[in-house]
Amino acid sequence: MPLYKSLLRRKTLHWVGGVALAGAVLMAPVPAFAAVSEETAFVFNTLLFLIGGFLVMWMAAGFCMLEAGLVRSKNVADICLKNISLYSVAGIMYFLIGYRLMYDGVDGGLLGSFGLWSPDDGAALAEDGDFSAGYAAASDWFFQMVFVATAASIVSGTVAERVKLVPFLVFTALLTGLVYPIQGSWHWGGGWLAERGFADFAGSTLVHSTGGWAALTGAIILGPRLGKYDAQGRPRAIPGSSLPLATLGTFVLWFGWFGFNGASQLALGSAADSIAISQIFANTNMAAAGGVVTAVTLTRWIYGKVDLTMSLNGALAGLVAITAEPLTPTVGQAILIGAVGSALVVFAVPFIDRMKIDDVVGAVSVHLVGGIWGTLAVPLTNGDASFITQIVGVVSIGAFVIITSTALWFALKYSMGIRLDAESETMGSDIAELGLEAYPEFGGGSQKLRGG
Amino acid sequence: MPLYKSLLRRKTLHWVGGVALAGAVLMAPVPAFAAVSEETAFVFNTLLFLIGGFLVMWMAAGFCMLEAGLVRSKNVADICLKNISLYSVAGIMYFLIGYRLMYDGVDGGLLGSFGLWSPDDGAALAEDGDFSAGYAAASDWFFQMVFVATAASIVSGTVAERVKLVPFLVFTALLTGLVYPIQGSWHWGGGWLAERGFADFAGSTLVHSTGGWAALTGAIILGPRLGKYDAQGRPRAIPGSSLPLATLGTFVLWFGWFGFNGASQLALGSAADSIAISQIFANTNMAAAGGVVTAVTLTRWIYGKVDLTMSLNGALAGLVAITAEPLTPTVGQAILIGAVGSALVVFAVPFIDRMKIDDVVGAVSVHLVGGIWGTLAVPLTNGDASFITQIVGVVSIGAFVIITSTALWFALKYSMGIRLDAESETMGSDIAELGLEAYPEFGGGSQKLRGG
Amino acid sequence: MPLYKSLLRRKTLHWVGGVALAGAVLMAPVPAFAAVSEETAFVFNTLLFLIGGFLVMWMAAGFCMLEAGLVRSKNVADICLKNISLYSVAGIMYFLIGYRLMYDGVDGGLLGSFGLWSPDDGAALAEDGDFSAGYAAASDWFFQMVFVATAASIVSGTVAERVKLVPFLVFTALLTGLVYPIQGSWHWGGGWLAERGFADFAGSTLVHSTGGWAALTGAIILGPRLGKYDAQGRPRAIPGSSLPLATLGTFVLWFGWFGFNGASQLALGSAADSIAISQIFANTNMAAAGGVVTAVTLTRWIYGKVDLTMSLNGALAGLVAITAEPLTPTVGQAILIGAVGSALVVFAVPFIDRMKIDDVVGAVSVHLVGGIWGTLAVPLTNGDASFITQIVGVVSIGAFVIITSTALWFALKYSMGIRLDAESETMGSDIAELGLEAYPEFGGGSQKLRGG
Repeated sequence: MPLYKSLLRRKTLHWVGGVALAGAVLMAPVPAFAAVSEETAFVFNTLLFLIGGFLVMWMAAGFCMLEAGLVRSKNVADICLKNISLYSVAGIMYFLIGYRLMYDGVDGGLLGSFGLWSPDDGAALAEDGDFSAGYAAASDWFFQMVFVATAASIVSGTVAERVKLVPFLVFTALLTGLVYPIQGSWHWGGGWLAERGFADFAGSTLVHSTGGWAALTGAIILGPRLGKYDAQGRPRAIPGSSLPLATLGTFVLWFGWFGFNGASQLALGSAADSIAISQIFANTNMAAAGGVVTAVTLTRWIYGKVDLTMSLNGALAGLVAITAEPLTPTVGQAILIGAVGSALVVFAVPFIDRMKIDDVVGAVSVHLVGGIWGTLAVPLTNGDASFITQIVGVVSIGAFVIITSTALWFALKYSMGIRLDAESETMGSDIAELGLEAYPEFGGGSQKLRGG
Repeated sequence: MPLYKSLLRRKTLHWVGGVALAGAVLMAPVPAFAAVSEETAFVFNTLLFLIGGFLVMWMAAGFCMLEAGLVRSKNVADICLKNISLYSVAGIMYFLIGYRLMYDGVDGGLLGSFGLWSPDDGAALAEDGDFSAGYAAASDWFFQMVFVATAASIVSGTVAERVKLVPFLVFTALLTGLVYPIQGSWHWGGGWLAERGFADFAGSTLVHSTGGWAALTGAIILGPRLGKYDAQGRPRAIPGSSLPLATLGTFVLWFGWFGFNGASQLALGSAADSIAISQIFANTNMAAAGGVVTAVTLTRWIYGKVDLTMSLNGALAGLVAITAEPLTPTVGQAILIGAVGSALVVFAVPFIDRMKIDDVVGAVSVHLVGGIWGTLAVPLTNGDASFITQIVGVVSIGAFVIITSTALWFALKYSMGIRLDAESETMGSDIAELGLEAYPEFGGGSQKLRGG
Repeated sequence: MPLYKSLLRRKTLHWVGGVALAGAVLMAPVPAFAAVSEETAFVFNTLLFLIGGFLVMWMAAGFCMLEAGLVRSKNVADICLKNISLYSVAGIMYFLIGYRLMYDGVDGGLLGSFGLWSPDDGAALAEDGDFSAGYAAASDWFFQMVFVATAASIVSGTVAERVKLVPFLVFTALLTGLVYPIQGSWHWGGGWLAERGFADFAGSTLVHSTGGWAALTGAIILGPRLGKYDAQGRPRAIPGSSLPLATLGTFVLWFGWFGFNGASQLALGSAADSIAISQIFANTNMAAAGGVVTAVTLTRWIYGKVDLTMSLNGALAGLVAITAEPLTPTVGQAILIGAVGSALVVFAVPFIDRMKIDDVVGAVSVHLVGGIWGTLAVPLTNGDASFITQIVGVVSIGAFVIITSTALWFALKYSMGIRLDAESETMGSDIAELGLEAYPEFGGGSQKLRGG
């Protein structure tokens, strides 16, 4: 039963009040009628994955709206297409190869096995049902699948406005079919990082930093957008086309994050699990709130004006930061973890800009910087995590994703090419790649007159 | 207990691993403490309807955004009003007449009874509660109600930009109060199609094709929009005003579809049910993913450019196609079912265009063509369905909806008129019907200069 | 166990079929295996709060989109920032002071205690778990927290386009940390209004009227926007910048309201509770539907054209109206309650306009007028409520919020100032406060040429 095992592995470091929850529901002797029956727990656990899964699926729409709002109108349709396509490609690849590579037979090693995923619920469906698997196989697959899509969503925003569509989707396929599952197997699949005690509850490193590294390498290899830097090499602000859509996207992500972190408890079939998930909901929300307030305050203090985009990124940075450990902090600690994540982003965004790395939506700052911070902060509230091991995890996964992503981006660059030609980029990827405009009636082409 | 019966009827063809699930939770002897108690199952089943219900309700917003993005800006406010109104009218009509017409006393026949719906939960609320009804009556009503609203939502997009508001809403009232419930009673209400073994799990035919036929007859009787065809009768592309809104709407629909298909399992009160719903979630998602990838690939191959609108419709076609049988396919089969649905839409859209049928958003291709395909595909994976019976269902429901819709559209045409006059259509339905503009500040009136 | 007590208090008036549900799940002797076990009920109740909580959290996005669509484009980014900030501030204040002020040790009095909130789930987590608390503490906190954010969201729309950002956020902090919790303690915290038998199931008065009064006092003290009234003092229509966003926001609010009202049942751990929640879902939906149909009909009849904005507000008015008692009405009664709420709004909006009170989005009409109506309508369907007591509640809470809000607005006015200077207001709060534009490419600055 590889799935059950993978659940145990992922749960290794989930503690509430000093009591390990791992498998508690499933293994504990049923004490009395007051408890939850095995089959009821099975249904609860499955329901948690399904609810969590649809919430995280909805985050794909959040990334799409966030990015559609932050690119120029000449690139909006293209980014919409990329987002709905990457979500689709990620699911197919995770079915074809990714899931088993991440969860099947990792056994302390470096990767799982190759092959299609298929569910095995035979025991639970047998005449005298054996519910010890704990949940329906497909509910777990669905929940894991939307996570890999999230990692891919992070990339699209950073490399927007100049990457070509087809190579981007090929990169997505390889990221979601190979890169993400292999590094994911190291911790959640029960590989070598799990055996060392690495702690990343819902994926500050496994999902967000992985997406962030893949985005960063892409941005460097692609180079900045035309017009992003002036003759003296100073960065120019290129405003997004629709801040309400960007705000909507942020709210969608915040909403979906309750599933992302909450359902990463992986079980709802006991009072203890429901208590843990409740704490995770509160902490997730408050880390984002701390992020917003911090970014609003800091940008007003530094720049004299509040920066809306930075405030949205502050919310997201708070969410990314709490993702590595949303359970053990108190609400007050969660606010602080989110606040620090947000403050880091307020400084990281202009820093990355000055490094001549053109990250269109700030995703590297949010997901990579925020993800590293969140991962390193785990030992502050979780006594079972070690600072050294957290660094080992961050560095090893970082190195793996940097190397593989760089190789993939270069392979694509020297085979099919990854960047739009200058004429297409100036015209906009919507016309160039899709032959249409996202907003054909607005402004009578004002974006052509004013855009970069 | 008509509701319980209707559940049994709807469940007739739901099988997992060769074991009929119908009523299993309710009728099986309770074997041991490991099982789910009757009252717990009642709560789970009810919760499934409530979660599924709010997800499908949210699809109303999805249709609204999809259509608002695909019409020209001069008709955006009007389509918003139509969408929120049709959802409201559908609910009221289904309460007043539709529900009982569909589910009360059909008994193998052609329709149920007339009268208001009201809940009867007396048995479950009695002192020594009898939970054999299986779920709360109002949760079932709510879940069924949002389905009828979905059927009505399909129509609004096709006939947009030229149908008058009030006759459209009258049509909606009759569609949702009479046409939908009567044909729905044939299968889900336990009517003659159910007795013949027709299989339509969540409504490829009952919901999507019904909406599609009603839309098709409307489009034909209304005629195309002014300027849709040139002097030689060749169709002109009329681009939508906001592709990010159309994309958002597609994501909303995809998200809501987990409720549409998942909660159509109609029970969550056993491990077997939760396993079935999990498979449905995975299949629903992957059919859509297959649809996206197919449309992206095909349009790039045929036209040299990827078509975003077609890709969105490809996602929806995949979803419609898997709706008739989301449970029995493997994930791989689900991807293929979605892919074929999407491919059919890629060819159906230009075909319908050339037939001089002006379907503004492509809803006939998606919901009717995709719905027929999905219904006919059921026997490919479900051994209990018969190809002949599926054809009987498609044809009989098609004939009924074509005849009744045609009669309604003509009755409205020759009584109150159904089409805006040419001046109003040119000016836009927003100004003509509502006296305002959807985007009063954008473009300084560019849509008046450039619109058709 | 203050939390358990607060649940009992809030539940005092929740009846189904003449049987008080309060604590029934927890106190009833477990009759037989057919029932729900104590721990299962604990999980169900917690799950209800979590689902309800994320649905209500999502309403923050709904308010944001509604308001972003109804302000002019020069103020869109600012209203987005206000909305995401107020949600964040509300959560932090409710954690720091609000929750315990509302729920801890009120005991029939006027307010609770001061101090940070922290969860206490020790009994349920003990070796031989005691599940009599009924739910996880943090799930309750999360659910209560999103309600206070809703109250704050109501204010932002009314005072939009001229209030300064920082004083608005200070007002929000005081509203959510002090004003809302104190009045909330009177009923839901088990204070003096609870002892008198006041009935406000989910907050027509406690949430919506409170937000409405705070908004009304703000609008009066701020004064109308420049250009809102002509030289003769007649109100001018100032159209919103994006009606599809306003429609989207309304759909989001409608969707979230299932959590708002449904989870206010506060328990899901029995068949009776699930039946109650189902009825609440149906009633909530149909009150909104009644509101839409009424506003569409009335505005067409009065003005000759259907008013989209009024129809959206009609939906919301229906939702606000049913919130005080979504359980005891039949579906038919719910439609009527919503319809009356909507009709009141159709007349209240122009009335308030003529009173020279400039409510940008109509929130006072919807939330205050609709909330009063809903609260007074409770005795029509709930025999345990008294008309006199309902008036006492409406008046006492109204007086408290009017006095405290007025004091706060004036204190802010004479300390930091609450209104943008004329130049900033004309230029738009986006440029003035944030230094950017929400839609920099649309219209080539048309909003500067055409805006008020």
